[in-house]
Amino acid sequence: MRPLALSAGEPAGIGPDLCLELARESREYPLVVLGDPGVLAARAEQLGYRIDCQTWHGGEVLRTAGRLSIQPVPVRTPVRAGHLDTSNAAHVIDLLTQAVDGCLAGHFSALVTAPVHKGVINDAGIPFSGHTEFLAERTGGKQPVMMLACPGLRVALATTHLPLREVADTISSERLETIIRILDQDLRQKFGLSAARILVLGLNPHAGEGGHLGREELDIIEPLLSRLRSEGFSLDGPLPADTAFTPRHLDQADAVLAMYHDQGLPVLKYAGFGNAVNITLGLPIIRTSVDHGTALDLAGSGKAEAGSLRAAVESALEMVEAKA
Amino acid sequence: MRPLALSAGEPAGIGPDLCLELARESREYPLVVLGDPGVLAARAEQLGYRIDCQTWHGGEVLRTAGRLSIQPVPVRTPVRAGHLDTSNAAHVIDLLTQAVDGCLAGHFSALVTAPVHKGVINDAGIPFSGHTEFLAERTGGKQPVMMLACPGLRVALATTHLPLREVADTISSERLETIIRILDQDLRQKFGLSAARILVLGLNPHAGEGGHLGREELDIIEPLLSRLRSEGFSLDGPLPADTAFTPRHLDQADAVLAMYHDQGLPVLKYAGFGNAVNITLGLPIIRTSVDHGTALDLAGSGKAEAGSLRAAVESALEMVEAKA
Repeated sequence: MRPLALSAGEPAGIGPDLCLELARESREYPLVVLGDPGVLAARAEQLGYRIDCQTWHGGEVLRTAGRLSIQPVPVRTPVRAGHLDTSNAAHVIDLLTQAVDGCLAGHFSALVTAPVHKGVINDAGIPFSGHTEFLAERTGGKQPVMMLACPGLRVALATTHLPLREVADTISSERLETIIRILDQDLRQKFGLSAARILVLGLNPHAGEGGHLGREELDIIEPLLSRLRSEGFSLDGPLPADTAFTPRHLDQADAVLAMYHDQGLPVLKYAGFGNAVNITLGLPIIRTSVDHGTALDLAGSGKAEAGSLRAAVESALEMVEAKA
Repeated sequence: MRPLALSAGEPAGIGPDLCLELARESREYPLVVLGDPGVLAARAEQLGYRIDCQTWHGGEVLRTAGRLSIQPVPVRTPVRAGHLDTSNAAHVIDLLTQAVDGCLAGHFSALVTAPVHKGVINDAGIPFSGHTEFLAERTGGKQPVMMLACPGLRVALATTHLPLREVADTISSERLETIIRILDQDLRQKFGLSAARILVLGLNPHAGEGGHLGREELDIIEPLLSRLRSEGFSLDGPLPADTAFTPRHLDQADAVLAMYHDQGLPVLKYAGFGNAVNITLGLPIIRTSVDHGTALDLAGSGKAEAGSLRAAVESALEMVEAKA
């Protein structure tokens, strides 16, 4: 298989640490880190890890413990672990650009991303609202869909990073239809499921309780689900969020579609125990990510936990296999 | 100790079944069911349980397996399991009224409620928005606070049964302050905690991310928490909901205060696995409840699960002991 691309993310954060954590073990899959070889070597030394960082420009990929193939993407200014520098915002964008282009060109089978720091990129004068939006624009994906997963649970979101007061007005039939179609298609094509059984949550508590607690279920969600079911989609709901996340319902579903961020992700993170993975659907490439931030205070300390990155790599591998 | 009052709830639902389930075992605590002795005896027969239902008007309470003390509250019309009848809505209100009055008069140590059916009570022409509101009015509790609990997790709500689009405007500093004061006081007085450590969630995803995803954290929640901390309250937050429900934070907290229903309860129900209990704080009496509805289709079938009722009884007993 073609190598996985792992972008090292914000160089002052724990991204390099996590890449090195993977490099300490032998790998059964080919992995290429996109990052600055000097930063990675210096971080390895700071951590007391003996890692042979070799530059990669195509060809064989190192897989033995302690050896790592790196597609070199130079930083713009020297890096101190834990200290953001706006001068390296362009480096972070370079990482993503080269990784995406490598995926689109077929050099990589999938993209796994370590965390970036949105604030410092924007402070550097580069408008950046997040990995997901950047990747959608760069790959021509029209509507990216954010899905988080952990063993036994997948949660996709109908809206993502919005103030709570804007959520209700953002839930439209058009938006939900687009997202359900992408979710259904990607669950089948990228996860190898023959039928994608989607459990759709209501927007309001108790899924509106027959209109007593809000009408979006009656006016928008139910008519849409009904129409899509008649096309053959396997859709359950709209269900109350506090009923849906119980074994009786989850056992019958491949994914839960939550209407907004805090309706779905607290359960996922609770269930995932630091091993959740963030998956972007609706793109022409396979992309997974850690579910956490740059944790600047942990960079170079040896205390960064690679659980979520390992899960992101495993998910990417499963998706590559399912697609093959 | 004085007996626990257990109101049997909607007679056509699984309330009577659950009461009888408890009666099959011997109890170390005194329990009096408020219900119709005929309905309970008939349901026992339907279920094939041999339960000796004796009326109770004060005095000793039966505790041996297969024997149950019942404070008789007659139904208004005969009951068929699974079939709602508006004629018995007044009976359900009678149950609650007598149970509350018995608690206020000191005959009972606490009230545990089996489920009622809001719809049929309203259909009968009796305005009824829920147990919690009814109990608050009857007991003179000014601001009831809904809290759900399961082993290891307590989640209180700053708002409860509202359409999602009304939540943001309902979160005021005054409301939050009242609720935090009640939560703090009841955690200490009713749960015997020396210091009540409360983890407060933000309203918006990522707790507003410094104002980028909503301003309620900056404008309302943070200033309030800061002021209450200076009074000695132990308050953590506002925290992102998808960060808060992880062991690192939960291990340091006695309760989580969620801003709204679907931000807090999906995690609680997921963690609780059918054994969650609903506790009403801010009342002059101790009150716990099952966390589920009347499950009309299961009434009389023997398939109703008493896990949540057992948890509600255990919570009530713990609160009675902590208060003693």
